[in-house]
Amino acid sequence: MAEEKKNKMCIICSKGTLDMAYPPFMLATAAAGMGWEVHLFFTLWGINLIKKGGAEALKITPVGKPEMPMPMPNILAIIPGMTPMATSMMKGQIKKSGIATIPELLKLTKEMGGHFHACEPSMAMFKLKREDLIAEVEDIIGVAGFLELAADANITLFV
Amino acid sequence: MAEEKKNKMCIICSKGTLDMAYPPFMLATAAAGMGWEVHLFFTLWGINLIKKGGAEALKITPVGKPEMPMPMPNILAIIPGMTPMATSMMKGQIKKSGIATIPELLKLTKEMGGHFHACEPSMAMFKLKREDLIAEVEDIIGVAGFLELAADANITLFV
Amino acid sequence: MAEEKKNKMCIICSKGTLDMAYPPFMLATAAAGMGWEVHLFFTLWGINLIKKGGAEALKITPVGKPEMPMPMPNILAIIPGMTPMATSMMKGQIKKSGIATIPELLKLTKEMGGHFHACEPSMAMFKLKREDLIAEVEDIIGVAGFLELAADANITLFV
Repeated sequence: MAEEKKNKMCIICSKGTLDMAYPPFMLATAAAGMGWEVHLFFTLWGINLIKKGGAEALKITPVGKPEMPMPMPNILAIIPGMTPMATSMMKGQIKKSGIATIPELLKLTKEMGGHFHACEPSMAMFKLKREDLIAEVEDIIGVAGFLELAADANITLFV
Repeated sequence: MAEEKKNKMCIICSKGTLDMAYPPFMLATAAAGMGWEVHLFFTLWGINLIKKGGAEALKITPVGKPEMPMPMPNILAIIPGMTPMATSMMKGQIKKSGIATIPELLKLTKEMGGHFHACEPSMAMFKLKREDLIAEVEDIIGVAGFLELAADANITLFV
Repeated sequence: MAEEKKNKMCIICSKGTLDMAYPPFMLATAAAGMGWEVHLFFTLWGINLIKKGGAEALKITPVGKPEMPMPMPNILAIIPGMTPMATSMMKGQIKKSGIATIPELLKLTKEMGGHFHACEPSMAMFKLKREDLIAEVEDIIGVAGFLELAADANITLFV
């Protein structure tokens, strides 16, 4: 009875900035809340999200971001202090709108049964070891391992 | 007869720049033209595309873009006036190659039956209300609502 | 016997930087190695990857990249010479970790049976002709052509 198979979502998390950390965890908590099987595969800059202390230290820079609600001229955006300022402004906006922080969403995803996988070649590239990663990471797998997980998923996304 | 089910494509539109506005609408119009059911979910910076006046005001910045055909050194790219210049150059190139503008593609997607959904948490984060969005937006839905739409789609993309 | 159908992965390659060139080719070689049917559709900035000499000349800029392991203040990152420096540092890191170069991965993907398609509207926009592309490209197809390929894929990604 194929109908009984759980829905499944797999996400490749390749970005390591504060803004782009939201989509994977918002999607993951929503899917896990609906009873879906959820796998997050952290690769490239996405490794930032699962390094010890990484989720707490995410930043957003206003440079080259004409899509921000109040875009900053690049000539100002490059001034030291603007990245921390944009980061704390975004964190403030998120807090005021009642959305959880990334460390909170990460913990929640795990508590709801989500699976966290680190990408083996990315670990090699950044010279990281298992002990550099947070405890929530289940395993370090290769790209083939991820593809096996995703082959029968309803949704597979590259973020 | 499962064969008779319409093909379906769902796209998460998370980017708000002129260049990254093209893929969702090019894909959406092509799919709708083939009779597919099409859903676009606008979230994060993608909200720019469905704010009143947003699609008309999209920009591209040459800063941090070594992939442009004629990349500009960053030290020049930050000078005020370079973002409008790159934007109008890209618009000119697009026009000359016979491709429609984003406002035109947006209208076309809607006329061909495409569905536009705004992301609820993103609306909260940017302090936006229904009346700040263009009429083409059908509803404001949460992430779980989007996942329900996408669970049986042939293609779901994160742009 | 549906079970005998080969697994299939389709990737839209829309980015043209050194870092974002890795995911499509790492996924493609892994999938092809598992016997999957693999299609890469090069569009927008991704056209860089299949232009003659393009794969060899990919760059990464440290501007607006707070996610790098050792992020550079934007005010330094804009200085001429920093893009080549970041590019050669990343290439060095990749080489030391035993990962192939992009030109090598591209060749390998093709040798393993991967299919390369160039996006027709992107070719028009960048005023490119067939002879500007590497021999590995199989054909120039429209967005509808790509959607037909992807309609029954196990995994379709937008990179």
